[in-house]
Amino acid sequence: MKVYSKNDFSKLEKRDKANLFNCFHGFKSPVLIGTKNSEGVENLAIFSNIFHIGANPHFIGFISRPDSVDRHTLENIRKQKFYTLNFLNIDQIKNAHQTSARYEKNQSEFTECSFDSYYTLLPAPYVLDSNFKLGLELKEVIDIKLNGTHLIVGECLEVISSKDIESFGLHDVSNVAVNGLDRYYKVDPIVRFSYAKSDREVSRLDFN
Amino acid sequence: MKVYSKNDFSKLEKRDKANLFNCFHGFKSPVLIGTKNSEGVENLAIFSNIFHIGANPHFIGFISRPDSVDRHTLENIRKQKFYTLNFLNIDQIKNAHQTSARYEKNQSEFTECSFDSYYTLLPAPYVLDSNFKLGLELKEVIDIKLNGTHLIVGECLEVISSKDIESFGLHDVSNVAVNGLDRYYKVDPIVRFSYAKSDREVSRLDFN
Repeated sequence: MKVYSKNDFSKLEKRDKANLFNCFHGFKSPVLIGTKNSEGVENLAIFSNIFHIGANPHFIGFISRPDSVDRHTLENIRKQKFYTLNFLNIDQIKNAHQTSARYEKNQSEFTECSFDSYYTLLPAPYVLDSNFKLGLELKEVIDIKLNGTHLIVGECLEVISSKDIESFGLHDVSNVAVNGLDRYYKVDPIVRFSYAKSDREVSRLDFN
Repeated sequence: MKVYSKNDFSKLEKRDKANLFNCFHGFKSPVLIGTKNSEGVENLAIFSNIFHIGANPHFIGFISRPDSVDRHTLENIRKQKFYTLNFLNIDQIKNAHQTSARYEKNQSEFTECSFDSYYTLLPAPYVLDSNFKLGLELKEVIDIKLNGTHLIVGECLEVISSKDIESFGLHDVSNVAVNGLDRYYKVDPIVRFSYAKSDREVSRLDFN
């Protein structure tokens, strides 16, 4: 076991440094965020920095950088207020990764990266072939002044699922995780544990 | 594919509702957060809501609820300013899950859940047997007024790793993901893609 100080890891070669820092935030579900701009052009971008903020109402957060590849997404969400999160499977990852390229404002990643859009009454495009999709409404953009990033908080208004939502698990509809910007992993169910109590050992539960 | 409105999923039976909502934030790396209180009692708690806020400096965020099982963690971080993130493997998950039980302030989850602590000069306990550990200093607590949760922002000051940090990947030191509160998954490397460009298809890279 080796201990590395900030001074040590700051000196790493650029690629090694990126590799290391990308590990810090762990495995994540990659999702495609679907939006539309004021000219009606659909946008799709891969994100993995999605997290739970609250269950009632159902707030979901993500972090957006001000001037990175996600800038169209942030701009569209601010203006249009609605967006979609689309979960993925391994076989969709190559096209999903391609959405991280820098396309022009008048180009749609749906077309460029071979995804079909799908609409409900919500004014934002879903990914037709995603097995699990969430429709969100923007609630707040919180500025993180420390480094100029933004925390986007949305409320889930709609769920579209290929499986019934009773006795549901994420593994029923998605089997991929990502770490950093480019490494994708397959995810397989292993164990589910009971609610932990201080006076007894946790026990195994049925997975679903 | 079925479409469910907020009205539909609000009517689900309690357990089904929890199952569904826990899917919204995707697969995550479970980590143990190590802290110490002002009486010197060590605390350890499992979290999965960890995310990237910035690379330079290396800011890592997590969401804490005000009055949940993580209350000792938040209180300790606010007072002591230093804490550790300890990544896990599948074989450590049962004991790690046990840390989510409600222990008293004078009880240490290190003792109760069979983890040994490890110290550097940083005044917070690491998990000895974790293959990848980060030492953090609190930079800011941002209140999310929408629902009373907190965004804790810390800077990574120290990395402790069982593998050299050159040509590093998270799969070298951790193989587990979690969804929701109780479902654990094994994570296996599948594919790594090149930086995406709008004028060409992405290509496969060596995984490390």
